[in-house]
Amino acid sequence: MDMKTKLIEITPAERDGVYKTIYNRRDTRGEFLPNPVPDEVLKRILNAAHHAPSVGFMQPWDFIVVQDQAIRQQIKDAFEVAHNEAAEMFEGAQQSQYRSFKLEGIMEAPLGITITCDRKRTGKAVIGRTANQEMDLYSSVCAVQNLWLAARAENLGVGWVSIIHHKRLKEILGIPKFVVPIAYLCIGQVSHFHDRPELEKAGWLPRLPIEELIHNDRW
Amino acid sequence: MDMKTKLIEITPAERDGVYKTIYNRRDTRGEFLPNPVPDEVLKRILNAAHHAPSVGFMQPWDFIVVQDQAIRQQIKDAFEVAHNEAAEMFEGAQQSQYRSFKLEGIMEAPLGITITCDRKRTGKAVIGRTANQEMDLYSSVCAVQNLWLAARAENLGVGWVSIIHHKRLKEILGIPKFVVPIAYLCIGQVSHFHDRPELEKAGWLPRLPIEELIHNDRW
Repeated sequence: MDMKTKLIEITPAERDGVYKTIYNRRDTRGEFLPNPVPDEVLKRILNAAHHAPSVGFMQPWDFIVVQDQAIRQQIKDAFEVAHNEAAEMFEGAQQSQYRSFKLEGIMEAPLGITITCDRKRTGKAVIGRTANQEMDLYSSVCAVQNLWLAARAENLGVGWVSIIHHKRLKEILGIPKFVVPIAYLCIGQVSHFHDRPELEKAGWLPRLPIEELIHNDRW
Repeated sequence: MDMKTKLIEITPAERDGVYKTIYNRRDTRGEFLPNPVPDEVLKRILNAAHHAPSVGFMQPWDFIVVQDQAIRQQIKDAFEVAHNEAAEMFEGAQQSQYRSFKLEGIMEAPLGITITCDRKRTGKAVIGRTANQEMDLYSSVCAVQNLWLAARAENLGVGWVSIIHHKRLKEILGIPKFVVPIAYLCIGQVSHFHDRPELEKAGWLPRLPIEELIHNDRW
């Protein structure tokens, strides 16, 4: 057998492992354990993120690994500000339900990772970013999703805290002006993973039937 | 052993399959074969995309599966327009090198999939999209990356064609006004996968050392 072909063929068992990881990935908020994430595991999930696709091979991402308690408390405080503003945007029973949700694990998870996008990393002209300027932001999102799946494959929980003003997050973490925060992720071991997304279980919104989302040739 | 725990534990072998898939995923342009993608495989990769994380469980994505030759020719023509504009943005030797790259496989791949974001899917207030309005777009990018990894796990190539004006893509595919195209992906069987990203192999840009991208606690 050709060694090169052998190396790059994904076997059915490996494929099934990928699907199992995809279907059992959750947004973790309330199940974090304080156990530290081993250094070698942290390195593996960061390296998986670094091997995401990027427009023009720009690799626009940076990773800020936040363990310091005081800094995490500042991030938690910033979450609370945005969370209270957000609650006001929902009405009646929805607002009460919104307030009842646990939406982050900033202090409970042993670490956070901020993934950013340096829009000036490789100069002005970037292959593939010419017609659509947002493509470098999307590359950093792909890095988030690679990290998330790698973490799940390591049986770690990840929660994306998007209820925070990114301007404030930049101040707290000293992020340069031209660098855009994409995600603040809480990461750690968990007591368990929910069998379905929590908002689905809570009856907030149902899983959409996929047939309604697929179009043939045109919308 | 607790059946529930057993079901959701990712084994070391499965984890390694996830990493193997992540590291061997490529942006495919020139290696597509005309063989059709079996329906059940197409369904599996679309369902993997549908199980991406989404802000507030919004599931803002739709999938337009494009097989029609005439429509793909229109998309190819739109690529050529944006590609010629792009070439003018590079200077000297970079422009010649840019023009030498094969950057899409629109007509060679047996199908394309457009992934979109319906920004009005679940009303105005969306959990997690309150402080950062772009979060729904990022959810659809996570769907792209899930689909890409699932396709790689099925030994299919995927190429993201970002050199196309999304306004024109919307016209061609009849996408409603409030729906944003995120990606046009070429998908199909391939003759082989490159061992490294093509732009890296061509010396366009080097792989960045990951140590330079990791910060502790603050930038």
